[in-house]
Amino acid sequence: MTARQSRMEAYPRADRRLRLGFVGGGRGGQVGAWHAAGARLSNRWDIVAGALSADPATARASGRDWFLADDRIYDDYRTMAQHEAARPDGIDAVSICTPNHTHYDIARAFLEAGVNVICDKPLTTSLDEAKALMTLERDTGLVFGVTYAFAFHAMVRQARHMILAGRIGRVRQVHVEYFQEWSCLEEKPAGGELPWRQDPARVGRASAISDIGTHAFHLASYVTAEPIVELRADLHVCGPARGLEDTAFINIRLAGGAPGTLLVTQVAPGNYCALRLRVYGERGGIEWDQEKPEYLRVSSLGQPDEVIVRGKEGAMLPGVGKMSTLPSGHGEALSNAWANLYTEFAVAIEARAAKRSLPAGMLEFPTVQDGARGVNFIQAAVESHEKGGVWTPCWLT
Amino acid sequence: MTARQSRMEAYPRADRRLRLGFVGGGRGGQVGAWHAAGARLSNRWDIVAGALSADPATARASGRDWFLADDRIYDDYRTMAQHEAARPDGIDAVSICTPNHTHYDIARAFLEAGVNVICDKPLTTSLDEAKALMTLERDTGLVFGVTYAFAFHAMVRQARHMILAGRIGRVRQVHVEYFQEWSCLEEKPAGGELPWRQDPARVGRASAISDIGTHAFHLASYVTAEPIVELRADLHVCGPARGLEDTAFINIRLAGGAPGTLLVTQVAPGNYCALRLRVYGERGGIEWDQEKPEYLRVSSLGQPDEVIVRGKEGAMLPGVGKMSTLPSGHGEALSNAWANLYTEFAVAIEARAAKRSLPAGMLEFPTVQDGARGVNFIQAAVESHEKGGVWTPCWLT
Amino acid sequence: MTARQSRMEAYPRADRRLRLGFVGGGRGGQVGAWHAAGARLSNRWDIVAGALSADPATARASGRDWFLADDRIYDDYRTMAQHEAARPDGIDAVSICTPNHTHYDIARAFLEAGVNVICDKPLTTSLDEAKALMTLERDTGLVFGVTYAFAFHAMVRQARHMILAGRIGRVRQVHVEYFQEWSCLEEKPAGGELPWRQDPARVGRASAISDIGTHAFHLASYVTAEPIVELRADLHVCGPARGLEDTAFINIRLAGGAPGTLLVTQVAPGNYCALRLRVYGERGGIEWDQEKPEYLRVSSLGQPDEVIVRGKEGAMLPGVGKMSTLPSGHGEALSNAWANLYTEFAVAIEARAAKRSLPAGMLEFPTVQDGARGVNFIQAAVESHEKGGVWTPCWLT
Amino acid sequence: MTARQSRMEAYPRADRRLRLGFVGGGRGGQVGAWHAAGARLSNRWDIVAGALSADPATARASGRDWFLADDRIYDDYRTMAQHEAARPDGIDAVSICTPNHTHYDIARAFLEAGVNVICDKPLTTSLDEAKALMTLERDTGLVFGVTYAFAFHAMVRQARHMILAGRIGRVRQVHVEYFQEWSCLEEKPAGGELPWRQDPARVGRASAISDIGTHAFHLASYVTAEPIVELRADLHVCGPARGLEDTAFINIRLAGGAPGTLLVTQVAPGNYCALRLRVYGERGGIEWDQEKPEYLRVSSLGQPDEVIVRGKEGAMLPGVGKMSTLPSGHGEALSNAWANLYTEFAVAIEARAAKRSLPAGMLEFPTVQDGARGVNFIQAAVESHEKGGVWTPCWLT
Repeated sequence: MTARQSRMEAYPRADRRLRLGFVGGGRGGQVGAWHAAGARLSNRWDIVAGALSADPATARASGRDWFLADDRIYDDYRTMAQHEAARPDGIDAVSICTPNHTHYDIARAFLEAGVNVICDKPLTTSLDEAKALMTLERDTGLVFGVTYAFAFHAMVRQARHMILAGRIGRVRQVHVEYFQEWSCLEEKPAGGELPWRQDPARVGRASAISDIGTHAFHLASYVTAEPIVELRADLHVCGPARGLEDTAFINIRLAGGAPGTLLVTQVAPGNYCALRLRVYGERGGIEWDQEKPEYLRVSSLGQPDEVIVRGKEGAMLPGVGKMSTLPSGHGEALSNAWANLYTEFAVAIEARAAKRSLPAGMLEFPTVQDGARGVNFIQAAVESHEKGGVWTPCWLT
Repeated sequence: MTARQSRMEAYPRADRRLRLGFVGGGRGGQVGAWHAAGARLSNRWDIVAGALSADPATARASGRDWFLADDRIYDDYRTMAQHEAARPDGIDAVSICTPNHTHYDIARAFLEAGVNVICDKPLTTSLDEAKALMTLERDTGLVFGVTYAFAFHAMVRQARHMILAGRIGRVRQVHVEYFQEWSCLEEKPAGGELPWRQDPARVGRASAISDIGTHAFHLASYVTAEPIVELRADLHVCGPARGLEDTAFINIRLAGGAPGTLLVTQVAPGNYCALRLRVYGERGGIEWDQEKPEYLRVSSLGQPDEVIVRGKEGAMLPGVGKMSTLPSGHGEALSNAWANLYTEFAVAIEARAAKRSLPAGMLEFPTVQDGARGVNFIQAAVESHEKGGVWTPCWLT
Repeated sequence: MTARQSRMEAYPRADRRLRLGFVGGGRGGQVGAWHAAGARLSNRWDIVAGALSADPATARASGRDWFLADDRIYDDYRTMAQHEAARPDGIDAVSICTPNHTHYDIARAFLEAGVNVICDKPLTTSLDEAKALMTLERDTGLVFGVTYAFAFHAMVRQARHMILAGRIGRVRQVHVEYFQEWSCLEEKPAGGELPWRQDPARVGRASAISDIGTHAFHLASYVTAEPIVELRADLHVCGPARGLEDTAFINIRLAGGAPGTLLVTQVAPGNYCALRLRVYGERGGIEWDQEKPEYLRVSSLGQPDEVIVRGKEGAMLPGVGKMSTLPSGHGEALSNAWANLYTEFAVAIEARAAKRSLPAGMLEFPTVQDGARGVNFIQAAVESHEKGGVWTPCWLT
Repeated sequence: MTARQSRMEAYPRADRRLRLGFVGGGRGGQVGAWHAAGARLSNRWDIVAGALSADPATARASGRDWFLADDRIYDDYRTMAQHEAARPDGIDAVSICTPNHTHYDIARAFLEAGVNVICDKPLTTSLDEAKALMTLERDTGLVFGVTYAFAFHAMVRQARHMILAGRIGRVRQVHVEYFQEWSCLEEKPAGGELPWRQDPARVGRASAISDIGTHAFHLASYVTAEPIVELRADLHVCGPARGLEDTAFINIRLAGGAPGTLLVTQVAPGNYCALRLRVYGERGGIEWDQEKPEYLRVSSLGQPDEVIVRGKEGAMLPGVGKMSTLPSGHGEALSNAWANLYTEFAVAIEARAAKRSLPAGMLEFPTVQDGARGVNFIQAAVESHEKGGVWTPCWLT
């Protein structure tokens, strides 16, 4: 532990913890655990209500796991939306951690009940639904966030801000890859049905690019601060044949003209959450690896390569220090990224509730529009592939 | 995210979250933040009370930061111990996050009030105090834990269990080093007084070995599952001269006869929390680095070296899976280690409250005795050094 | 140093060192230095003659640098071919280290003079020339090798043999990337002319893919032991505009159906000779990085990841030990790869001279046919790009 | 490959290659192979004579392996010294690659015959012999080098020169460790005799510290540019019991007062040639790892950590470029270090032959005095250990 600490710029302090509910995320799921970890670690939220499973018995058991009060454990999300909206101590926001095809209905139910929404990605399984949610968000004025959580690693934000500050010069190419092995291992559910991430009825027209391709797409644009205007995609099945792609090789073009690649696969043995980001500019390059999230490799022509460890005095940019709680070397990782994400959602919701405006650029959380861009990307990739890999516009403005 | 997950052995589920209070840990401190993070992330605790600073105004402001109820923000720990003990919803345990010299009085006050204690290391600044706390713990029957948190990284436990299972054969040597740079950077507090970690009145006879040497000592013994029976120590000042050592080179001997080294320094530029563990046995070796906590390097003579990533199917030992919440590659780090630690404290306290016994070996948290061993180690190191580096017994039985 | 050493299978011993001449490679060049290093380190060759530059004065000075006898320093390669062919102690082989467009004429001159040829890549700047050299090689019966030197790192051969042995199951995808930064830095030669690697008159229709793309193409096929049957290519200029591409994103398909990517760029700041190879199969994966050439990362589903260090007992496959001269950890690198390459060329030439046959599979050096495949690949990539990235056959049978 | 290259300062060019003979180094040995590799790769030497084994048949066979002329393959070194000294084309220098206890007699024989000497380390097995060689060297005026080859990695020299240039401020502590595993694996020679490295009759009073401890000692002093004035040593047997130590933990003190450690072991499974160097000063730190020899990690307080790759433009210091032949990323490794060493020996011998003086600081090769310092270190370590680890002077002036 260090006795000398960066004087870190802070998010606004809150008056109380916000109240959070969950749809999905209980026993048998996985994503709920890290949403909840982020919310807890942020110390901005109390998790007080939930419809934690589509199966009522599981929903109950899961609610008790989470120490929810009995009257706030719900069997279905519609009841939850109504009851919570009616309570004086009702939830400030709902987190949606269910399979993709249900996001739309759930999000709409809560927005219509006046509850802010935090939704897992991809936002929806169709672009129409995504656009409808954009409209609803605008009409209700509620906060709607989408959990591209990797963008909340402190060193990812540092990367973006270094690029914005011109550290590598104009961006000339970008590569994001996301390699995993788990889909090689996936067991068939009983009854021979498809695992849900391979089932078109639940994930839409694509599997790997819905699940992890959207992260790659979001990061490529977020870190370079440029829209991705077009793509060409080749989708592949490189693991067990189950219908949908498990692998995609996508070429992209940024608005500023730079080309790039997004490579995603869920059948690369020895890769776990191997999300790697590389941006090269006129004068330098930046590289980051999600499995070693505390380090940013920064290169400049004619100078030694730098490795910036999170929190390093003299190296972190203004505006990034607030995303860090532990000193350098005292590792932060994925739960800390989720805590940053849940902090920013909270700050946005508090500001809206108080009708306060925030300093420009304080918050960078992905909005419903970013979520819709992800859906549009999925559609564009599938269409490009189906047409033999033709260049296809992919940015939703 | 993976759809197939290890069937993980679990800690017992709880009926409610336990109630936790803090002494120290508020604004201006640092350690409190990671205690609190561990408690929150564990989802086993609600933090409900605190005397968060010796300075009343800071204590109040900090209490509000933490969203404590006004009547549970205390100006001093004695009042807190009395009031909380008297409340029907009083705290189940107190976390002590104050400078070393105050641990004894605070711990005693809470034990005497019937409150379980979680104390930062080193336990006390004198061995007599440490032994007195051992007696009190035994007499009260309360749970008393000491926060050697690095031992709660999943891969550290994996290392210990692999060694216990004979994976590397008999231990033949062990090396633990803990290098940091922060003490090069430390600014003098106003008025020319010493920083508290260099002030004998507050830390006792040693600085770096009190702060980080105790971690190295604990890990060396924990991972090899052997007492450290003697040591010889050379203490040095390699940074700004301030009286106490900032660097120590310590040779040790394990009960089984294997020699080893503990190297600690807080003035090694470019090192942050560089706690590295290496154990070599007759047939293999195990290496771990706190700054890359998710990986264990395991070598066997005549075979390829292995790198085990936390959570890897087919590689994690029974009893270690429960320390892991995210899939491989979805990084856990220091806050997750603290969450594991706070989970084990909670499970112990729940079991004690329910007069339930737990499966042997379920919990491995450091007890007051482990804390006292750390104090004994500090004394032995100082005495060895003062006598020119003579071999000195250092294990408290 | 270790006293116990793998009993390494050996290449046949030679009766004498072979005599080697160089065309190109003298002062001002670069490639000649590593050809010569490989030849010297192999202890299979004496370098005795050379036309080391197109400029006679430079050729002379360079010849003296290399301690060539005065009468074997030549002003032009044609004279060299004639004189050396006529000498009783004439060269056994010539190494061609000149710009791409001259390879064909030089190689033909030496083949016609009866001298074995070792030619830098790419073999030629047109496919017709490449095919003509294939014919000449067949007609003369001489040895003709092409210096894809990276394939001679011991751990690359280990990778190939592990894949051939079924270690990762059927190959399902392959990725080779080769990133460098040097082309960002390149200064314009005096007179505003193009650097030779950007000059179509000297490199043909492509720059980066001629220079480093051919390595990536060769490795992808060599390591997977499968032809690359088709590709689609997007070529880009991401550095200073000079006409030819400096960056290429190429999708490929192996004969067995597996897809893959070849990504090459010479304008990625912070990348030096970042040639990385990843192959994923049904059951496992293999990864190798030219900048850490001594290590192979090998993964298997359900088991710890392995890192095999060159020379590790119990891990190296039969047939690979002969490519290693130092014990594990005593680093070998690029010069050792070149030494392996020059050793295999020598063994082939010795066997041919002695009309001896060698055990099947002993030598794996790239032949003139492999060189022609590289030229064909360059043509296919350019044509695919010019047609908008259409799938294009790219394997020369 | 890069078209733009550092303008590298050069060693003086030579008129001819020097003639080198070997004593020892033939079949069954190991060290000879890397001496020879260095000599060949340097292009400064022809290996023309040898008494390559104490066993005449092995000496003959080895001589033919090396393509020596029949009349320059010798059965014993004394004959070799006489005959070579008498030939007009006799060797310029001899490389001694035999077991430690024979170095003295062999070196004396060649010095007395007027032949320059390159001797493996440790120089001798007694300090008296070492001092006698110092006297002989001074009296004959011949060049006498000792092969601490690790000091010839380009990045080690870069480290030394950065420290000399004040980059990290005054040196405050130094740690060198050298871990290997091979001695766990060593097979007993037939007849139950000891392996030679464990046999006091052949290595003197110490094993691991003679073999690898001397490297650690030399590097610690070379890189910090300070004498090591005293030490305390604990020697251990951590592998199979065979009499001599296989492990040593040594505390040192530099002339400038900085403390440090030398940790060496040859029984650490998973370690191959793990020679790691760390120096920390007032303002920064430098770290280097022999198994990744191309990189230097350089830290400065308050700035990002740097990783300098060998050859990086804008990062290499003057005087270091000449130790590099390939561009960044095109890996150099141990054979290149040996080539640098043999180059410096050659330059020294050429200058002496020509009675030329060289620019101050051009050569940094270890002299007979450095060799004697290594012997003195071994004695001091053994004596310190035998007296229970007392502080013992260890620098020979």
